[in-house]
Amino acid sequence: MQRVALQQTDVFGIMRADLERVEARVEQAATLEFPLASGLVLDIVRAGGKRLRPLMLLLAGRAYTADLDTLITAAAGVELLHTASLVHDDSVDRAALRRGKPTLNSRLGTGAVILVGDFLFAQSAILAAETGSPRVVKIFATTLGDICDGQLREMFDAHRIGQSREEYETRIYGKTASLFAGSTEMGGVIGNAPERHIQELRGYGSDVGMAFQIVDDVLDLTQTSTDIGKPAGNDLRQGTVTLPVMNYANLIGETSDRAGTLRAVVEGEITDDATIDDLVQDIRQSPAIDGALDTARTFAERAKQRIEIVPDSETRDLLAEVADLAFQRLS
Amino acid sequence: MQRVALQQTDVFGIMRADLERVEARVEQAATLEFPLASGLVLDIVRAGGKRLRPLMLLLAGRAYTADLDTLITAAAGVELLHTASLVHDDSVDRAALRRGKPTLNSRLGTGAVILVGDFLFAQSAILAAETGSPRVVKIFATTLGDICDGQLREMFDAHRIGQSREEYETRIYGKTASLFAGSTEMGGVIGNAPERHIQELRGYGSDVGMAFQIVDDVLDLTQTSTDIGKPAGNDLRQGTVTLPVMNYANLIGETSDRAGTLRAVVEGEITDDATIDDLVQDIRQSPAIDGALDTARTFAERAKQRIEIVPDSETRDLLAEVADLAFQRLS
Repeated sequence: MQRVALQQTDVFGIMRADLERVEARVEQAATLEFPLASGLVLDIVRAGGKRLRPLMLLLAGRAYTADLDTLITAAAGVELLHTASLVHDDSVDRAALRRGKPTLNSRLGTGAVILVGDFLFAQSAILAAETGSPRVVKIFATTLGDICDGQLREMFDAHRIGQSREEYETRIYGKTASLFAGSTEMGGVIGNAPERHIQELRGYGSDVGMAFQIVDDVLDLTQTSTDIGKPAGNDLRQGTVTLPVMNYANLIGETSDRAGTLRAVVEGEITDDATIDDLVQDIRQSPAIDGALDTARTFAERAKQRIEIVPDSETRDLLAEVADLAFQRLS
Repeated sequence: MQRVALQQTDVFGIMRADLERVEARVEQAATLEFPLASGLVLDIVRAGGKRLRPLMLLLAGRAYTADLDTLITAAAGVELLHTASLVHDDSVDRAALRRGKPTLNSRLGTGAVILVGDFLFAQSAILAAETGSPRVVKIFATTLGDICDGQLREMFDAHRIGQSREEYETRIYGKTASLFAGSTEMGGVIGNAPERHIQELRGYGSDVGMAFQIVDDVLDLTQTSTDIGKPAGNDLRQGTVTLPVMNYANLIGETSDRAGTLRAVVEGEITDDATIDDLVQDIRQSPAIDGALDTARTFAERAKQRIEIVPDSETRDLLAEVADLAFQRLS
């Protein structure tokens, strides 16, 4: 890829031109013929996060000999798949805010939200098909399956304390890391990287995704409503047991009063805000948070080791920078 | 394809071996790791209709030199896409029954239904990708987009009398005919049919789908709850204006009392069952029904003309038989 000075560390700035092309493709694909729905969908797309998944796909592809148009197409597909999944997920969670803005769910009926999400899935699948690569399409379809699996697990695992670390990791792999993994794998495939490199890129994406989700799970406990558009401890209120909560459960043992409170909150027997707020405070002040962040850092470090195989040193450095982005949100 | 005696007219019997292979693929793909959800999904899949879309895909492919495994894979993908779309559609409509059985929607929360539908979309996309044909994948993705478009139109067009025939046809093309069209097109593509044949097969599928949907719209008015698992006039109750209702509106003019009642029902101002039942009775006894059926027959006839291009006479006869299947349900 284009040589860049290493001291210029903002990977988003360096990749801006590519990301703007992705943005244009995403907006084009997300435009519906129905003005009301279209406006709401474009609001969501534009409110959208950092385009991290497209960024990672582009970097993985640009480290090799990828056709840029094909990379842009796949990157737009990945971002739309992510958006579709958020639209449905907000409806599943009945969330009122996403990225600090009202969700589609709070502005349209459930039926319309389901259909708009399906429409976005369709548009993302059309973009995947436009790459003309059966392998890219297969990664894409498998990833959608993994995301659903993760979300279904979150639903069916809810309200149950005493889950294994493995169950947690399987769940967040599906829910979050699978699309990061699919993105970097697609980048490698479109870049015609050697198979061993593609596998390491996929592993890198997966590890970065795990780090991101663990940090998200920490932020859910440590950030307040105005920061993230949700009440602190939202996961707990929904009965979702995350890594910091699992760490906390291990710290307090099974027989303490606090263990009883935690169990009752997770099982949905205690729902009053004061008790839950106290519990969240107690978790925040415990070593459970740092323990979870250590785990996230271990994933990020493994991600960086995996990309040592990438021959282009500039891209390698940018990918390493991306692996650490999860932790920027903690400051 | 295998030569069959022409007097053996049950196309489902003739294609049974193929359809059983499709069935096995569908059930395999629809099996989730979550026993509760998996049981419910398999119930829906097994309650499933006649496998008309897989049948049409198989016939279109078998008329040429198709790889049977690839046809079976694509046919299973098409059936799963249809099932996923029904699962979401029942949730959009808040329907309690489908094919005379409780919908998933009436047995799981909305969130679970959304995710199960998404899971089925993912599995169908995986099957499409497994054909290894970028063109099949593209038809598949585009069709999903068309289905969503049709369903969104149905939602946004609801509660509005005075729609054009073109609006109605665009909507039912998306909602129903697009997947029939995609199925026969995929069959032709997998069969390596000449391009002109593929286009006629696609047109045939579209016309058959239009005929089916128009007959469905008639049956919605003429059949009772025990026949179809929905109250008669369900579309009207939801404010959906179908062809027989449009015909009826034209017959009664814009200024009659009945026109006022019809408008009020469509706009959702009148919701009491007695008035709607009377209105449905009046439509049933009017020439509006026969007028709609004539339109459906015109589509079926055009479908049969289109397949005159198909070289294999046995398959051509079977496809012609399928074009008339819509009307069997009227007896």
